[in-house]
Amino acid sequence: MDITTLFNLSYGLFVIGTKDGERNAGCVVNTVSQATSKPITLTVCINKDNYTNACIKKTKEFAVSILSERIAENIIGIFGFSSSRDKDKFSEVSYGLTASGMPYINEGCTGYIQCKVINFVDNYTHTIFIAEVQEAENLLKEPPMTYAYYHKVIKGKTPKNAPGYVVAEAKEAETAKGAYKCGVCGYIYTGSREEFKQLSDEYRCPICGSGKSVFNPL
Amino acid sequence: MDITTLFNLSYGLFVIGTKDGERNAGCVVNTVSQATSKPITLTVCINKDNYTNACIKKTKEFAVSILSERIAENIIGIFGFSSSRDKDKFSEVSYGLTASGMPYINEGCTGYIQCKVINFVDNYTHTIFIAEVQEAENLLKEPPMTYAYYHKVIKGKTPKNAPGYVVAEAKEAETAKGAYKCGVCGYIYTGSREEFKQLSDEYRCPICGSGKSVFNPL
Repeated sequence: MDITTLFNLSYGLFVIGTKDGERNAGCVVNTVSQATSKPITLTVCINKDNYTNACIKKTKEFAVSILSERIAENIIGIFGFSSSRDKDKFSEVSYGLTASGMPYINEGCTGYIQCKVINFVDNYTHTIFIAEVQEAENLLKEPPMTYAYYHKVIKGKTPKNAPGYVVAEAKEAETAKGAYKCGVCGYIYTGSREEFKQLSDEYRCPICGSGKSVFNPL
Repeated sequence: MDITTLFNLSYGLFVIGTKDGERNAGCVVNTVSQATSKPITLTVCINKDNYTNACIKKTKEFAVSILSERIAENIIGIFGFSSSRDKDKFSEVSYGLTASGMPYINEGCTGYIQCKVINFVDNYTHTIFIAEVQEAENLLKEPPMTYAYYHKVIKGKTPKNAPGYVVAEAKEAETAKGAYKCGVCGYIYTGSREEFKQLSDEYRCPICGSGKSVFNPL
């Protein structure tokens, strides 16, 4: 079996927003798919280790923010490489609330979709949520961010709870040729060591926003 | 609710191949997503009206062919606009068989994935199949076909059993400005009437392969 075959499944990139009681919770996912058109339902697959998973099981609602190619580069860092157990990730971004109070990112997203969970399925490490769409609005006329664009253009890293993590690790091992690697999110700076050293101390990891000091030479 | 928001969910395009007893069966889908990485499982959503759905419920196995941008233009027509009830669609293409005998297209696909169904969920008009990956091989180093590429570059039409059909119909009504429409698959020829009339009688619909005579003026 050649697991690199799975690299060619195509996905978008999304932030799922829900509530932990009064507080917002959310995470990055790449597995939002429309499942039916009458009524409009969709599926989303979320790791059971993600705090957002437990919150959705309680709240039974969530909003999908559809990231565009113009999304701020640190969004994946904020939502993909830290936990809503520890902080309200939405406090670091510009966001709105759906009619029922679910948070969505309102800058750099093509739109948002408010969903009500109608079923969920346990599947090893992940839960597959099936939800009915209650509200959907466009925000920005830009191409949606795809997982391929994220990896190719932004050279982003797969969060360890994502379905494709093992595959992405294999790909990285095969192709990594960068000089320095971010110790927080694993982003690889692909310039030379000399170029890295010449970066200003204000340099921030484009994925998770960490400073230059957490980067390690490869 | 603005259902055009759902246009910005990103997908690939795939042919699902399975068996009806001895005969091959298959259809086009856009909803193959990796669900977990240990073990590697994926989900695929198939309309209950598709004959392939019933065949997978019996066989409990299928192969996913990952279409590349170089796939023959008539593949969507063969697999998306006719039924495996009536014919063996694979007899019209070049195909191989996985170790357990599931058919996959071996020309113009980036690779194939052999899957064993471990669970399925009834969801209104569609079934969500959850399957474990048993075999996966790369075939062709070309970009995978995305649903966006299919609509933008190939100007393809959504088969009526696809999850996005209602949405796609709304989009088509909004943007169709072509002169002639294929009466079989709905492909819209976007040149002028004059240009259409000047096409040779050998002209074939790039989606379903039908002749010039089935096209109707818009």
